Amino acid sequence: MAETSFPPVSFDTHPSRYVHWGLSVEGAVATMTMRVQEDRPMWPGYELKLNSYDLSVDIELADAVQRLRFEHPEVRVVVVTGGYDKIFCAGANIRMLASSSHAFKVNFCKFTNETRCGIEDATRNSGQTWIAALNGTASGGGYELAEACEEIYLIDDGNSAVSLPEVPLLGVLPGTGGLTRLTDKRKVRRDMADLFSTKAEGFKARDAVKHRFVDGSFPRSKWADGIKARAAALVAAAPARDAKGFALPAVVPTTTADGFVYPSVKVVIDAESRTGHLTILAPTDAPSQTADTWSLRAWRELDDALLRLRFNYLDIGLLTIRATGDAEAVLAHDAALDDGSWFATEVRHFQARVLRRLDNMAKSLFSILEPGNAFAGSLFEVVLASDRSYMLADDEGANRVRVTAASAGRFPMSSGLTRLQARYPGTPAVIEKVLGEDDWIDADRAEKLELMTLTPDSIDWDDEVRIAVEERISLSPDALTGMEQNLRFGGQESCDTKIYGRLTAWQNWIFQRPNAVGERGALKMFGAPERAIFDYRRT
Amino acid sequence: MAETSFPPVSFDTHPSRYVHWGLSVEGAVATMTMRVQEDRPMWPGYELKLNSYDLSVDIELADAVQRLRFEHPEVRVVVVTGGYDKIFCAGANIRMLASSSHAFKVNFCKFTNETRCGIEDATRNSGQTWIAALNGTASGGGYELAEACEEIYLIDDGNSAVSLPEVPLLGVLPGTGGLTRLTDKRKVRRDMADLFSTKAEGFKARDAVKHRFVDGSFPRSKWADGIKARAAALVAAAPARDAKGFALPAVVPTTTADGFVYPSVKVVIDAESRTGHLTILAPTDAPSQTADTWSLRAWRELDDALLRLRFNYLDIGLLTIRATGDAEAVLAHDAALDDGSWFATEVRHFQARVLRRLDNMAKSLFSILEPGNAFAGSLFEVVLASDRSYMLADDEGANRVRVTAASAGRFPMSSGLTRLQARYPGTPAVIEKVLGEDDWIDADRAEKLELMTLTPDSIDWDDEVRIAVEERISLSPDALTGMEQNLRFGGQESCDTKIYGRLTAWQNWIFQRPNAVGERGALKMFGAPERAIFDYRRT
Repeated sequence: MAETSFPPVSFDTHPSRYVHWGLSVEGAVATMTMRVQEDRPMWPGYELKLNSYDLSVDIELADAVQRLRFEHPEVRVVVVTGGYDKIFCAGANIRMLASSSHAFKVNFCKFTNETRCGIEDATRNSGQTWIAALNGTASGGGYELAEACEEIYLIDDGNSAVSLPEVPLLGVLPGTGGLTRLTDKRKVRRDMADLFSTKAEGFKARDAVKHRFVDGSFPRSKWADGIKARAAALVAAAPARDAKGFALPAVVPTTTADGFVYPSVKVVIDAESRTGHLTILAPTDAPSQTADTWSLRAWRELDDALLRLRFNYLDIGLLTIRATGDAEAVLAHDAALDDGSWFATEVRHFQARVLRRLDNMAKSLFSILEPGNAFAGSLFEVVLASDRSYMLADDEGANRVRVTAASAGRFPMSSGLTRLQARYPGTPAVIEKVLGEDDWIDADRAEKLELMTLTPDSIDWDDEVRIAVEERISLSPDALTGMEQNLRFGGQESCDTKIYGRLTAWQNWIFQRPNAVGERGALKMFGAPERAIFDYRRT
Repeated sequence: MAETSFPPVSFDTHPSRYVHWGLSVEGAVATMTMRVQEDRPMWPGYELKLNSYDLSVDIELADAVQRLRFEHPEVRVVVVTGGYDKIFCAGANIRMLASSSHAFKVNFCKFTNETRCGIEDATRNSGQTWIAALNGTASGGGYELAEACEEIYLIDDGNSAVSLPEVPLLGVLPGTGGLTRLTDKRKVRRDMADLFSTKAEGFKARDAVKHRFVDGSFPRSKWADGIKARAAALVAAAPARDAKGFALPAVVPTTTADGFVYPSVKVVIDAESRTGHLTILAPTDAPSQTADTWSLRAWRELDDALLRLRFNYLDIGLLTIRATGDAEAVLAHDAALDDGSWFATEVRHFQARVLRRLDNMAKSLFSILEPGNAFAGSLFEVVLASDRSYMLADDEGANRVRVTAASAGRFPMSSGLTRLQARYPGTPAVIEKVLGEDDWIDADRAEKLELMTLTPDSIDWDDEVRIAVEERISLSPDALTGMEQNLRFGGQESCDTKIYGRLTAWQNWIFQRPNAVGERGALKMFGAPERAIFDYRRT
């Protein structure tokens, strides 16, 4: 079923099963220790030397970022450090990158970006401040990981350095946040950023501090105490938090004859039409503050389904998205998240991250609204995230949607805009009108409010939807990805969108060029005795 | 000398020699009529059917945009229309694109973007409002050109349409502003933009007006009068302007044994080291309000040199930039542009556009400051635009620079930031200090102000510069382009930077993909009886 050139990826893991990371929690301080097992790569064919990472390492990190927020709300500071002497992390594994398909590289980078933006989200929205304790050299993706932290400390041992050697050594970019965060987050002078990013050996502690590549350094003798003191200071400055964490159970789909399912999310794969049909089931339970409440469980299922669709179903170009069941129950679950509690806040932020994952799918998204649909409140954001929405205009009033305050700012996109703002750029009057609707909205009204792309009647419905799907899947997948990403992110940009839409997009360009991936390209030749051979024409 | 796969490009033209455009001026209204000569492409190998354009067509347009500002300041409205029946413009010529090198496509798109941003700049800063009078179908780049205008009118003849058929017909993007301007400038709903951009036949007048793809339409019987009336209304609403235009003489370099020169700009090509040495000569004349005054003439020479370096010297990866002569004379010329006159305003905006052209070079830029340098005032912006700056720390005080109010907002980058803001992101105190310097700044002081990347003394100077150049030109040209563009444009984005840095960058990715340019790619197969064959995996 999975039409990929590598085994299907699973995102299910747990600290007890981490291979490459250690997670320990002592009071308000968690420590994430990277100790990559060289001989346990995700797939055979490369060794994870020098604490370099592949997707399996990043899946564990993403899991930890998530769990810390739900399972350890008492944590105020997360120290990320390395488990080996002299090296913190050498970045993404080059052999893995050089042997990966273009599509995998792109998906890998996107997931890495999401995890790092998730680290910043944890600091911003949960007050869990991540600090990087670089106990040895951090190069490439290793330093980029550090940049995702709020503060970076580097051991001053006369040897350890921070560096971005991608350009000089590999002929590619520090493309998962590295360049953008230097200037836009860390406020490094751009000529100094240029010098740094072309200097393979990077900067040791003194110069790194001087030019703001790190925030501080400690000699080896004071290293452990220095980091500990800084963590303690941050804890002391953090507001108190009254919350009790709970365990997040595993989210694993069941494979079916034609796809995979979770309790509240179903995916049917139609390989022939290169279309995935994703259905979200509305709650059947009353809201509760547990891991099993629909607002959390179903959204975790959706998150997992999106990731699996990305990595394991490259041939699927289009997702139709439906929501079925009791729309009122969705609203009840949304309302239960209005109480300002720690639980409610975390769940809302999680839902926001899932929606941002949806925005970043390299697949066309069509919402399909038929009688009995449950697109109300938080689920209506899925419609707004879609490239197009088709709503059947029935005469019975059974097909309707509901827009609530959930669309007014609860779920910011990466750009900081709401999805209504991104969908109706520069027309605040339309948005105001939509948010002012205090009732269920049928297809006629939705058409008037410009809420749906098309609202065919029952005579045209089947043909309209069928033709729209057929047309979509016939188009160039590359052109669609480019078009959709450009149209989805209208209006303002942020550090996050600049990373995804500009920095990583330029990397995708470079990742295809013979100067990187050709037989004598720098990425292919890395570690070989001969030098790479470049076509020096600049474009 | 020119290491390209096609004949050197010249940007020198004049309305009297236009092949593809007619420019007429009647009072305050200019009309640009596109009547592309099918049998006069820039190079043999394709025919410019259906008013499609190649670089030669765009060079004439760029020339007209420029001349209108200097030669016809009385013009308040520019109507751009087509010279053939039923078709306004079919966009960039597909055969030309399909047969061009990747580098040429990228340079061609960049130049087209600059011209279109120049049209918007003319409206914004010179009050010359461009309106598109689409007398027939405008598709692809034809509609993108219309989007660069402030208003778009489409003939309602039951046949003519606006469309962006790149995605459905060619497997590429409307990548020179098309998608970004739909949402960010024209405020089209993004799902409607999606529908439009995948619908090869586009929208005729009624739907196009309804969804804001055009601003109005007139039936054939009222077409000429309708456009005339709209132009007259815009003229009537425009503020009066007291200015007398003057002719812009040709700017053509003289070829030398090792490069090309103009009266105030010299370019020496060192093919072996893939380095171009560009020197700007400070004024030797007193300021005047004529076409020959240094502020205008020398900057036009610089503009022309940059364009020639882009198109005709692909192998040159690095530009060293020097300025020599009387720095006080530069300041005198700058001061002469402070009088608020029409002339001064136009020249300042022109200089700003030249500096933006410099920001957009796909070549590394190193400023080299030696004793006698003339980097003061407006020319200091060239230093700030550079990726790095090297200043010799001499003991004589003969090597110095001067930062003036010219760096405080006279020359906005595409992002809207000043180059000081882009260079020192988020550190307003540093910028304030720099702008507060009321005297000449020597290397020591420049180092303290963080104004220079490096300030070697005379013992180290030669080696430092030589090694920096050698290292730079050894690196992957693709990685450098990606890195430099990311670092040069830190901070906020604008519609312009989104077009260059995101939309067109995604196009550059797609332009390399087999789905577009492979033997069975859509761009290659366009017009052939067989359909394109796609690898449908989405990335």
